[in-house]
Amino acid sequence: MSDLKSKFLEVYSILKSELLNDPAFEFTDDSRQWVERMLDYNVPGGKLNRGLSVIDSYKLLKEGKELTDDEVFLACALGWCIEWLQAFFLVLDDIMDNSHTRRGQLCWYRLPKVGMIAANDGILLRNHIPRILKKHFREKPYYVDLLDLFNEVEFQTTSGQMIDLITTLVGEKDLSKYSLPLHRRIVQYKTAYYSFYLPVACALLMAGENLNNHVDVGNILVEMGIYFQVQDDYLDCFGDPEVIGKIGTDIKDFKCSWLVVKALELVNEEQKKLLYENYGKQDPACVAKVKELYETLNLQDVFADYESKSYEKLIKFIEAHSSTAVQAVLKSFLAKIYQRQK
Amino acid sequence: MSDLKSKFLEVYSILKSELLNDPAFEFTDDSRQWVERMLDYNVPGGKLNRGLSVIDSYKLLKEGKELTDDEVFLACALGWCIEWLQAFFLVLDDIMDNSHTRRGQLCWYRLPKVGMIAANDGILLRNHIPRILKKHFREKPYYVDLLDLFNEVEFQTTSGQMIDLITTLVGEKDLSKYSLPLHRRIVQYKTAYYSFYLPVACALLMAGENLNNHVDVGNILVEMGIYFQVQDDYLDCFGDPEVIGKIGTDIKDFKCSWLVVKALELVNEEQKKLLYENYGKQDPACVAKVKELYETLNLQDVFADYESKSYEKLIKFIEAHSSTAVQAVLKSFLAKIYQRQK
Repeated sequence: MSDLKSKFLEVYSILKSELLNDPAFEFTDDSRQWVERMLDYNVPGGKLNRGLSVIDSYKLLKEGKELTDDEVFLACALGWCIEWLQAFFLVLDDIMDNSHTRRGQLCWYRLPKVGMIAANDGILLRNHIPRILKKHFREKPYYVDLLDLFNEVEFQTTSGQMIDLITTLVGEKDLSKYSLPLHRRIVQYKTAYYSFYLPVACALLMAGENLNNHVDVGNILVEMGIYFQVQDDYLDCFGDPEVIGKIGTDIKDFKCSWLVVKALELVNEEQKKLLYENYGKQDPACVAKVKELYETLNLQDVFADYESKSYEKLIKFIEAHSSTAVQAVLKSFLAKIYQRQK
Repeated sequence: MSDLKSKFLEVYSILKSELLNDPAFEFTDDSRQWVERMLDYNVPGGKLNRGLSVIDSYKLLKEGKELTDDEVFLACALGWCIEWLQAFFLVLDDIMDNSHTRRGQLCWYRLPKVGMIAANDGILLRNHIPRILKKHFREKPYYVDLLDLFNEVEFQTTSGQMIDLITTLVGEKDLSKYSLPLHRRIVQYKTAYYSFYLPVACALLMAGENLNNHVDVGNILVEMGIYFQVQDDYLDCFGDPEVIGKIGTDIKDFKCSWLVVKALELVNEEQKKLLYENYGKQDPACVAKVKELYETLNLQDVFADYESKSYEKLIKFIEAHSSTAVQAVLKSFLAKIYQRQK
């Protein structure tokens, strides 16, 4: 494990222990144990990319100056706030999507002792964020900006989740509602803000920057987040299950995936009929027909073209930025995701 | 309808329209309609006591000075934030408790078109609070204190809900876990902070007060909130269903009610056996046996005694307070609930 990651995990233990002894609540023994088990089950088990990128970004913004122990701790704490936010979304998304597994284990709400208590646990995870922020950032000049940032990004994510849910789930499945602008809007709000903009915005605040002066950075990161989600949609169908660690279900789940909206742009009448008849069906034969259509439409090439054009566009945007430190942050993000296979 | 209540409802329309046009999210037509319907269904349909009491309290703190239009609007906006918070808790509680009706209509998640999207809607309700606060209070000196206050109270409420859920739902039903201190702890965190402390704390902040100087006010309001919940528990069993508008279910639902913890203190061995055998059973005959035991134990008199002692104690606390304006706020709260029948 890298030094950074082991340091990051060390900070998790400290934050957890502080939360388990929060003076704003008198724990019973049972409830303290419950929260500890819930945190260990749901918070640290992911790839931690979002959290770790706060520290990476902050280092790049400091242009190689050695960070103090205090700075490292605070950057880790903000990174963990994003991981807590992610855990909150996942616990509740799994309930809403009726999912079975997550990160290689049963979903939290599926554990027999947990059930619907998971909804309250999800909210508790979200409540922990301002507890962490208050304990470690209350006296910082950017404290109120941190609160505003987390609140705004959470609002955007929930709103993105809402349009995803009401287009995917409500009423009869209707492919005619799906389009590239709708896909873009869902992805931008549901994923890009919290996964791409939030870590960098946290690092900028810690570095004393005013976020109003960095609207362009936000725009670039949102574009990158959209590109990231298009990759995700692509890999769900064309990725190697061995490499991505799961078997895609977007076709049978009637998801508003980039592939289906691209296909809808490219189909002739006959292919459109086939797509309408087979998309969103559990039957593997239907899924296979959709996949075959994607191949007939050369969506692999269409994606490769999208990927290289996105990359070029992003690099151009990034290099137009006035600060080389900020350029370094953005390029580091882009390098991590360009042509990823998982 | 009182002038105050119609003013309050007018402010609801304004806040709703602002939220439906929040520039932080690009609504689709569908999603804007969804949110409007969701808000109208879940936010304004209650008794609005919590929200209205912000304005009442603020008026009393201003000792009869006429409020400006701006002050009235802001006090109403804070009142609505509490009603939004309440709506968020109720939407999610109903999912967790598998409830059927709420405020005389089907629970939101029970509507066929809604289902599990209700969980996301609940979170959206919670996200609206910082949107309202940011729009109307961002430039106030007490803005950060408002954010901290709502965050802390939400954390306490969720933590109280957690101990309630894990004692009531997890594992086999075990009456030996129930006790007066546990009951007090659940009620204090789950109900008292947000229903009693929060409205007054909002009014104090608007009046320019530092909440750290009003710990005693918090303590009194928490005591009052506990007394309020004991009344609720009592009325669930002994109230007139015609008057309280519902038929109590605490006995069959195995709730940690004040009545059952009081009974556990008073029973002899034989009565204890009866209670263990019949509490938390759906069978009406079991419920009737428990009720009969409560009557044998004279719980009505025990409650009447508790009620008058609580009242005296609270009055004594209140009259010890140095500010007559604060005394007026607290007495007004107490008068609203003393010996209530619903």
